[in-house]
Amino acid sequence: MIEDKNQKRTPLSELGEFGLIEHLTKNFKTEQPSSLKGIGDDAAVIDFKDKKTVVSTDLLIEGVHFDLSYVPLKHLGYKAVMVNLSDIYAMNALPTQITVSIAISNRFPLEALEELYEGIALASKLYKVDVIGGDTTTSNKGLTISITALGIADEEEIVYRNGANPGDLLVVTGDVGGAYLGLQVLEREKEVFKVNPNNQPDLSLYTYIIERQLKPESRKDIPPLLKQLEVKPTAMIDISDGLSSEIMHLCKQSNVGCNVYEDKIPLDPQVISTCEEFDINSTTVALSGGEDYELLFTIAQADFPKIKANPHLTIIGHMTEEKEGIHLISRANTKIPLKAQGWNPLKN
Amino acid sequence: MIEDKNQKRTPLSELGEFGLIEHLTKNFKTEQPSSLKGIGDDAAVIDFKDKKTVVSTDLLIEGVHFDLSYVPLKHLGYKAVMVNLSDIYAMNALPTQITVSIAISNRFPLEALEELYEGIALASKLYKVDVIGGDTTTSNKGLTISITALGIADEEEIVYRNGANPGDLLVVTGDVGGAYLGLQVLEREKEVFKVNPNNQPDLSLYTYIIERQLKPESRKDIPPLLKQLEVKPTAMIDISDGLSSEIMHLCKQSNVGCNVYEDKIPLDPQVISTCEEFDINSTTVALSGGEDYELLFTIAQADFPKIKANPHLTIIGHMTEEKEGIHLISRANTKIPLKAQGWNPLKN
Repeated sequence: MIEDKNQKRTPLSELGEFGLIEHLTKNFKTEQPSSLKGIGDDAAVIDFKDKKTVVSTDLLIEGVHFDLSYVPLKHLGYKAVMVNLSDIYAMNALPTQITVSIAISNRFPLEALEELYEGIALASKLYKVDVIGGDTTTSNKGLTISITALGIADEEEIVYRNGANPGDLLVVTGDVGGAYLGLQVLEREKEVFKVNPNNQPDLSLYTYIIERQLKPESRKDIPPLLKQLEVKPTAMIDISDGLSSEIMHLCKQSNVGCNVYEDKIPLDPQVISTCEEFDINSTTVALSGGEDYELLFTIAQADFPKIKANPHLTIIGHMTEEKEGIHLISRANTKIPLKAQGWNPLKN
Repeated sequence: MIEDKNQKRTPLSELGEFGLIEHLTKNFKTEQPSSLKGIGDDAAVIDFKDKKTVVSTDLLIEGVHFDLSYVPLKHLGYKAVMVNLSDIYAMNALPTQITVSIAISNRFPLEALEELYEGIALASKLYKVDVIGGDTTTSNKGLTISITALGIADEEEIVYRNGANPGDLLVVTGDVGGAYLGLQVLEREKEVFKVNPNNQPDLSLYTYIIERQLKPESRKDIPPLLKQLEVKPTAMIDISDGLSSEIMHLCKQSNVGCNVYEDKIPLDPQVISTCEEFDINSTTVALSGGEDYELLFTIAQADFPKIKANPHLTIIGHMTEEKEGIHLISRANTKIPLKAQGWNPLKN
């Protein structure tokens, strides 16, 4: 539904591999003082000085992680960067560089790749990371994006998944469930479009949740906010697969249990109204939705006054002894064992 | 022709994404003192201390970069690591860590992935690099491997592509053309197999070139050798796309020309005999073949005595002023403009 039939189509083969890489990356200038050498050699060279380096990598596959019938390529490029930066922020670190590898079938014209790179460039600029390398190649089918993000932190600032203690408070940034619901709306409009291609969908009721799906932001504001509040989380993870799945990761790696309070989970009003419209349970969406790219962390109870009433942070539960298990305390005050129903890319 | 019909087939969906990652990576222990945190968090953490960091990344796609009808998965895993480490050695640096991302269709059983990871583990062990992270996901079709390699070097040791000067000698390690010819033999046997599946191919005449194709090694011996010889190349690149293409990269980035002497290009006797059998020109194979993962570098003439007669190193030409262009000096002493006929993955 977003396709422009009159677009210019330059075949990729016209440029060849090196010409293509040069064309797509010529505007990537390195801005980070640590980037000594960017694109154009066998490897990039970085000077991390006395900082520790954090490294994370993600693979996005067409038809598995995204559907090009409703994801504009520019947004896809932007989101692919966000997915990776989110992992760096989840270490309480600052992203500095990324490498970007793309495999693309010849059905895509050069202009499509340019759009994708525009989104990558925009994200890099806004989040101040340098694109320092990558690979561009053909695929037999579809589009694959592989990004590796590098970042820096002082050793004492780094937050792992395994430091939560019984009694710690469980905190989530922003709100959850929106990205998943945005996807449901887009999927529905796709079906409508198949039946009636001339239908102009009115998406004005869903702007927030669609933006959460198509153009998520990662929480670059959180590590500096925590520093300013003088709070160091005891454990942290980003929410990519769904709140319940991430809670279970924190619990498992920290050897603790957890009580999560259903009525504390932060939901946007659009999430609530759209859940009603779709007749689905908003707690299920919040727990299992995924792709919110919010941060989930634990803090010592003593830090409670520091974060209290901060509009970005919501306390949704507390950690317990491991043997007590992981539970959702429902609005009706019943204790329900939490299950990881996050997205499983292998079950298709 | 290498398929074992009796193999055990465990569906990937039985494990789920996290179970699968845990299963495949449980034996990856970090050995490098710089690896503070490996697999299992949002990101790995590394302490590069006062060294500079080099980063390189490559994407391998089934049907484009490899054909599983004759590449054993274990060899593929090994080769995927080699391809990346080769880029690090080409900076005159020492690889220390890799991240490994795999997208795989559900047609592969768990046992296939285990084989692939065995090759990755073997390469990591022999080359002393830690597998510190990655991503595992499904694909709609085929197998995709994305590896990012990190390495270290002192700043003054790093060799870029752009430092060659007119008069410098052009040096290649090992011999070239073997990997491409190995592929030709394997392609031929695949066709024979299609016609007669019971045919047992006799590959004893091609052991070296098939190994060059299926199980290449990267030149980890060269950076320490250069140090021992007290030679710092002025420019260096690894040979992945073909000798002529790499020569042109060095020339372009260093703003120099080059004369390459046909009779100096090092060829293994098996390359020569197989070229005769296939009735193809061995110089064409050497110049355009690709996938040799040898190193190509330039040194100042003054360093000639230091490398003279070293069995690993062959001087194949010298750099000239840029305006003189890039030429092959043939055995008949004619001057032929060199063209980059290296492999172009976008022209399919």
